[in-house]
Amino acid sequence: MTLNLTIVQTTTKKEKPDPNQLGFGKYFTDHMFIMDYATEKGWYDPRIVPMQNISLHPAAKVFHYGQTVFEGLKAYRTKDNRILLFRPDKNMERLNHSNERLSIPPVDEEFLLEALKQLIAIEKDWIPPAEGTSLYIRPYIIATEPALGVSPSNHYLLMIILSPVGSYYAEGIHPVKIYVENQYVRAVQGGTGTAKTAGNYAAGLKAQEGASEKGYSQVLWLDGVEKKYVEEVGSMNVFFKINGEVVTPVLNGSILNGITRNSIIHLLKHMNIPVAERKISVEELYQAHANGTLEEAFGTGTAAVISPIGELNWQDKKMVVNNGETGSLTKELYDTLTGIQNGSVSDPFGWIVEVK
Amino acid sequence: MTLNLTIVQTTTKKEKPDPNQLGFGKYFTDHMFIMDYATEKGWYDPRIVPMQNISLHPAAKVFHYGQTVFEGLKAYRTKDNRILLFRPDKNMERLNHSNERLSIPPVDEEFLLEALKQLIAIEKDWIPPAEGTSLYIRPYIIATEPALGVSPSNHYLLMIILSPVGSYYAEGIHPVKIYVENQYVRAVQGGTGTAKTAGNYAAGLKAQEGASEKGYSQVLWLDGVEKKYVEEVGSMNVFFKINGEVVTPVLNGSILNGITRNSIIHLLKHMNIPVAERKISVEELYQAHANGTLEEAFGTGTAAVISPIGELNWQDKKMVVNNGETGSLTKELYDTLTGIQNGSVSDPFGWIVEVK
Repeated sequence: MTLNLTIVQTTTKKEKPDPNQLGFGKYFTDHMFIMDYATEKGWYDPRIVPMQNISLHPAAKVFHYGQTVFEGLKAYRTKDNRILLFRPDKNMERLNHSNERLSIPPVDEEFLLEALKQLIAIEKDWIPPAEGTSLYIRPYIIATEPALGVSPSNHYLLMIILSPVGSYYAEGIHPVKIYVENQYVRAVQGGTGTAKTAGNYAAGLKAQEGASEKGYSQVLWLDGVEKKYVEEVGSMNVFFKINGEVVTPVLNGSILNGITRNSIIHLLKHMNIPVAERKISVEELYQAHANGTLEEAFGTGTAAVISPIGELNWQDKKMVVNNGETGSLTKELYDTLTGIQNGSVSDPFGWIVEVK
Repeated sequence: MTLNLTIVQTTTKKEKPDPNQLGFGKYFTDHMFIMDYATEKGWYDPRIVPMQNISLHPAAKVFHYGQTVFEGLKAYRTKDNRILLFRPDKNMERLNHSNERLSIPPVDEEFLLEALKQLIAIEKDWIPPAEGTSLYIRPYIIATEPALGVSPSNHYLLMIILSPVGSYYAEGIHPVKIYVENQYVRAVQGGTGTAKTAGNYAAGLKAQEGASEKGYSQVLWLDGVEKKYVEEVGSMNVFFKINGEVVTPVLNGSILNGITRNSIIHLLKHMNIPVAERKISVEELYQAHANGTLEEAFGTGTAAVISPIGELNWQDKKMVVNNGETGSLTKELYDTLTGIQNGSVSDPFGWIVEVK
């Protein structure tokens, strides 16, 4: 497709950060994508411009009523210097799913993906080459109309910003300790849990703080109705290997439809490993642990790809998984998926999209 | 207390809007209050400055993770030209309650109230005199640190903006039709329902749109667990008069602790009218309507003060309340409370705070 896109190149390129000190989402590239929306015009004026602050009226609706959605994906540099995206069409599709839930007008998925590719092509020198590193891509939409009535905005900004990120596991993949949250709830059926929207993350901060104080990395969220069934871990989806079968909570209307989650399910089927999406109670995990069949556990998400779980604490009952070590299947899935993403493992699924 | 506050007066005062066309939250005054926060400094540099856009990094956490809280209150001009606030200490108290839930550092309530009074004194000409009009006051805090990690921000902005607002009932108080929402949920125990935070309002937009399409003004929210019990109406608390007793949902951990709600309960006790805070199922309302004991219904909130309900639609079963007319108790409560607020009715509760 021919993109009708204005490009304003920066005249003052920033110095690139130390590739060993990237962390996550701390540094940003020289350019960003912006597009406006007005009810009477639709989406208009798509442009790539120098990275810059945005100026908003203090009454902009995003500040007051949280009408905003986002996405997260990564661009990888291969050993032979090609640039790869991983299933970016799925992010565009989910962005519109989130838009629908938040009463935000839909975007043209194909156009936005092309604009994203063009931005990445301009910023290609920002994609770090080291294994485990990548360029994190954050598309997002905010409601900008300056009006305090509680109603959908008539004006929006869509932006894409880029951040070179380090390996999530600086010292190699290692298991984390997880606290099963009994007080706070992330989402409930009928709420916004299936949308990638700011309020879901705001709701989780308090529980995360509590878990950290107790020495745990993340919380395991239970369902908001009975507080019995496993939903997500931190801001990731979650998988358990129980007696040879891999299980993950079924998409029940309050769980995010993770693209890494979906890819892991595909990968497991491809490997002929039994996998099931179903309700999983924390009691079931406890019993499986007690009888020795809770073999592995891990979270999945764009940032960490796969994060092995070494311990679960449920009401002060501790379940150590696989002696607190990364399980062999977890490791294999991590190696395979990150290999497909960075081009070092062949992609039988057609997931990889090259940026020319 | 002595306020250490910088004041920069505007040099270009805006023209005041037509007092008959104010609407709600569309016009803003000439000045605003701002205060910064940094983890290493605490809250600092409180200042009153000309109303202006704010410039934020595109990665500011408020855009991505919704770490933000707000309050809403009003200043009234009395017939003898005094300026009154209604229980503003309660708003400051609730702001800190919301801060606690959203992992935002607390503010000095007394200081903030004094700063608010000073801002109102500077903007006193913006308080419209007509009955039912007022100056709406919106204090709010947003997370501004430019970092994409999901964790509490190290930087915040607290702002207060002011908007002259018209009478909520341009043609006098009149009952609205309400749709009982069965699909979407506003909040659940363990979530953020008791905090005044953006995500709660974002979650409600979709249901509100659906109700509007069906010809209803607002939705009645049911609990997120069983979808049986009444929680709030739109962004208001809700009361029912059943067989001579006034009932309102008990603060169960997912309902906002409304200041108008609390004031109505005090007022009813003062009037020796039976009032109870308890669980109320929509089935109970339906039965009460069927046997003729559902006498009145109304919402309460800062914007409308009291909003009478003329009809409830629950799964296409219509309950017309008081022949679709404003109930006599609803009207009496409205007149008394708005009278206390605008200084035309004496205040036996010590709720009114004068701005000198």
